[in-house]
Amino acid sequence: MNRREFLTRTGRATAALAASAAALHSGFGCTTLTAPESRERSGRAGRPPNIIIIFADDLGYGDLSCYGHPTLHTPNLDRMAAEGMKLTQFYSSSPVCTPSRAALLTGRLPIRSGMCSDKRRVLSTKSRGGLPRSEITLAEALKQKNYATACIGKWHLGHLPQHLPMRHGFDSYFGIPYSNDMKPTCLMEGEAVLENPAVQATLTRRYTERALAFMEGNRHRPFFLYFPHTFPHTPLHASKAFKGTSRRGLYGDVVKELDWSVGRILEAARRLGLTKHTLVFFTSDNGPWLIRRQRGGSASLLRGGKGSTWEGGVREPCLAWWPGRIRPGSVSAGLASTLDVFPTCLALAGIPLPKDRIMDGYDLAPLLLGTSPSPRKEMFYYRGTRLMACRKGPWKAHFLTRAGYRQKKAKKHDPPLLYHLDHDPSERFNSAKTHPKVIADILEIVARHRKTVKPVKSQLER
Amino acid sequence: MNRREFLTRTGRATAALAASAAALHSGFGCTTLTAPESRERSGRAGRPPNIIIIFADDLGYGDLSCYGHPTLHTPNLDRMAAEGMKLTQFYSSSPVCTPSRAALLTGRLPIRSGMCSDKRRVLSTKSRGGLPRSEITLAEALKQKNYATACIGKWHLGHLPQHLPMRHGFDSYFGIPYSNDMKPTCLMEGEAVLENPAVQATLTRRYTERALAFMEGNRHRPFFLYFPHTFPHTPLHASKAFKGTSRRGLYGDVVKELDWSVGRILEAARRLGLTKHTLVFFTSDNGPWLIRRQRGGSASLLRGGKGSTWEGGVREPCLAWWPGRIRPGSVSAGLASTLDVFPTCLALAGIPLPKDRIMDGYDLAPLLLGTSPSPRKEMFYYRGTRLMACRKGPWKAHFLTRAGYRQKKAKKHDPPLLYHLDHDPSERFNSAKTHPKVIADILEIVARHRKTVKPVKSQLER
Repeated sequence: MNRREFLTRTGRATAALAASAAALHSGFGCTTLTAPESRERSGRAGRPPNIIIIFADDLGYGDLSCYGHPTLHTPNLDRMAAEGMKLTQFYSSSPVCTPSRAALLTGRLPIRSGMCSDKRRVLSTKSRGGLPRSEITLAEALKQKNYATACIGKWHLGHLPQHLPMRHGFDSYFGIPYSNDMKPTCLMEGEAVLENPAVQATLTRRYTERALAFMEGNRHRPFFLYFPHTFPHTPLHASKAFKGTSRRGLYGDVVKELDWSVGRILEAARRLGLTKHTLVFFTSDNGPWLIRRQRGGSASLLRGGKGSTWEGGVREPCLAWWPGRIRPGSVSAGLASTLDVFPTCLALAGIPLPKDRIMDGYDLAPLLLGTSPSPRKEMFYYRGTRLMACRKGPWKAHFLTRAGYRQKKAKKHDPPLLYHLDHDPSERFNSAKTHPKVIADILEIVARHRKTVKPVKSQLER
Repeated sequence: MNRREFLTRTGRATAALAASAAALHSGFGCTTLTAPESRERSGRAGRPPNIIIIFADDLGYGDLSCYGHPTLHTPNLDRMAAEGMKLTQFYSSSPVCTPSRAALLTGRLPIRSGMCSDKRRVLSTKSRGGLPRSEITLAEALKQKNYATACIGKWHLGHLPQHLPMRHGFDSYFGIPYSNDMKPTCLMEGEAVLENPAVQATLTRRYTERALAFMEGNRHRPFFLYFPHTFPHTPLHASKAFKGTSRRGLYGDVVKELDWSVGRILEAARRLGLTKHTLVFFTSDNGPWLIRRQRGGSASLLRGGKGSTWEGGVREPCLAWWPGRIRPGSVSAGLASTLDVFPTCLALAGIPLPKDRIMDGYDLAPLLLGTSPSPRKEMFYYRGTRLMACRKGPWKAHFLTRAGYRQKKAKKHDPPLLYHLDHDPSERFNSAKTHPKVIADILEIVARHRKTVKPVKSQLER
C-alpha cells in the first residue's frame, strides 16, 4: 500500500461529506474504505476525538512548576497535569528543532525522511529542502476521517511554498516559517507573508486567538489543531500583559504567557462542551538551550540540554489531557516518544497505519487510558544521521557523546557508556563494566535497527 | 524574661488541668499567665491546632514526584501537595543533621545554641554534648497550651540521658538516638534501649504505628507530633512490603515507604475528624548525600548536596497541609526556613515568643494562610560556625564555598560570588561584577547579623 493508497483506502466512510473539501486542501482524494481493521479501530474509538498538540520550543524538562521548577509559575499547565497525565519519560526524537518536528508529524525517525543532517542542525533560511511530499503527516492521515486541520505557530519543515503546512494536510496556516532568530522572521497566513518582520511580542497572544477561533469554528466536527509555539526559543518576547510579571525574569514572563495560552485552550474545550472528545498533548521539541544562559531553560536533574543526546537534550515535559478518559492526576514513567503521537492519534481515530513504509512509533492509547503499560521498550537517540545512543528498558548506552552544543566532534565510547536511567536519571554512574550482557543486548537491538535504515537524500543540505 | 519565666508566664490558662503531667514530663511548672499578647494571639488562633512535623533525613529537593523526580513515585506526598501548599524556597538551617534539627526545634541558629562546630559536622556516638537545657524546644513551648507531645524517630541532639527528648518537652520518645550509620544503632523507648541493634528494615513501619497510636490517643486534646524519620539516610532499609517495588531501586523503595507513612498519617487525621485542627509539615533536614552515589537522592536543578551551602545542600522539599485553612494546590516561592516553624506554631497556638533570647525565625502563618507574602527577606547560610553565604531577596552572596562533601578547606571569595536565585536557581551565572550595590547591601546585613552572634561553647566538641 503506497501513500496514495493509504490516504485513499482509509478515508471514505466518515469522510464522504467532506471529501471534496479535504481533497481540495490536502491534494488527495478520499474515496474508498474496505480495510476491516479500519472499521474495528473506528468501533473501538467511537466518535473520533479532537486532537490538539501544543508544542513548546526549547522548553526544558524542568521548566514547569509541576516538573519542579522553583520560580516558574505555571498554574494552567499544573492544572492540566492534575486533570490529566504527567509523563516523566517522554522523549522528542531529536535534540534540535527541524528533525524533532518532522518526527512528530510523520511518526518516523528523521533519518528515514531525510529531515536531518550532519552538516547543519536544522533548516536555514537558505535551505531549499523541506518535508518531502512522499511523507504522510498526521494532518493528512486524519483527513481520512474528515478532520478539520490547522497549523498555528512555528513550522520549520521547509519555508518554500511546496513545503508549507497547507501542502501537508493542513487546511490553514498562521505562523512563522522557521525559528524566531532567523531572518527575515516573517509572519505568514497560508502561503502569504502577512507581516515582515513579525511583531514577536504579540505572537503568543495572536496564535492563541487563532487557535480559539479554529476550535470555535470546528466544534461540530472532529478537528486537529497543531499548535507549535514560537517560544521560549530565543530571542524572548512577551506581550505587555506578561512582561515583567514573573519571578524568573523574561524567560519566566514568556513561559507564563505560554501557560496562559494553554489555560485558554482548555477553557475553550470546556466552554464548547468538547472535553469528552478532545485529547490535548503538551510537550516541547527539544531540551533547554543552555548556552543562552539565563534566557535558556532548565533540564532539572537531567544532564545536558538542546543539541545533546544526554537526557536533558531530548526528554521533555509531557502532559496528556482528556477528561473522562485519562485518569486525573496520573503520573507515568512509561517510555514514550513524539514518534508515538502519530500512531496513537490514528488508533484513537480508527485509522490504520500506512503499510508501505517503516513507522517508528507505538500506539500509546493503552498507556494514556490506563489499560496497560507502555508498549515502547526501546529508544534510539539520533543526532543528525548518527545514532548516538540507544535505550532498552531502563538502560541507556552511549556510543557517541558531545560535551557541549557548539562542540563539533563527538567522542566515541567503546565499550559504550551505560546508565540505568530509572536509578540514575542524571547519568552520573557508568555501569558498563558490571553489565556486559546489557550492552550486548543493546548492540543487538542496534544491529537490527540499522538494517531498517536506508540512506535517503538530506533535505537540510539542499 | 528568662526561660523559666517564659515557660511559666504563658502556661496557666489552658494548661491548668495538664499542669502536673506537663511538669512531670518537661520538668517545668506551668502556673501563671498574664501577658496580654498571649490572649490576643490565642484569640486569633481559636482552638490551638495539632502540629505534626514529618522530617525526612537526607531527602533531596528533587526527590518527590511533585518536585519533578521522574522515577520516584510519591502519590501520598503528591496528594498532600495537591491538598495543601508546596513551598519552593524553603530552607533548612544547616546542610547537616545535628545543627539542622537544633534549629528546627528551637527556632534559633545553631551558632547560638552551640549545636555546631568546625571540627565535626554532627554529634558522634562519643559526644558528651547535646541540646543545652537552656534552650526552649517547640515541645516545651507548646506545653504551655497543654499540648500532648511525642518524638518518634531520629533524635541526634545528644544521646546521653540528660539530652534525650523527654528532657526537652516530649512526653514520650521512640526512635534511634542518632544517625543509622552510627554504631550501636539502638532503638530506644523513653530513655531505655529497646533493641540493639535496631532492626532497621521495620523502623519506618514501627514509627508509623507509634505515630498513629499517639494521634488516636490524643485526639481530644491539642498534640504535637515530631516525627523525624531515619531514612533515606544511608544505610537504606525498607520493609518487606516495599523492598524491590520501586523503579528507583532501594532508594525508591525507602522513599515509597516514607510516602506510605505520610499517607497513613493524613488518613488518620481524616478518620479521627482532626483535619480542621491539624497542621502538617513535611520537609527534610538537609540536601541529598551525593557521595553515596545511587543510594543518595537528587537536588533536582539545584547545585550541590548535603554538607554544602550551595542551594542543593539546604533547600528542601516542603509541604504544608491544613484542610480548610491552607488553599489546596497552592505553590509558594516565598522565602521560608525551618527556623520559622517554631514562631509559626507558637503564633497559631497563641503563645508569645520567648523574650530573653534572640529568635531567628518569622511567623509564616500569613504565607501559609494566604493573607500576605512571606515576612522573611534574608537568609544566613552557615556551615559549622562559619557564615558561608547570605541571601537577600532573590540575591545570594557566597563568601566561602566548598567543592565537595569531603573537602575540608573552604575557598574564599572577595568579592563574593553573587547569584540571582529567582532567575538562576542553579547558581550558574556569577553576577558580582554588575551588582556591587547588592553586595554592599548584603555585607551590611551580615555586619548587623554578626553583632547579634556571641561565642558559645560547642556541644559537638564535648
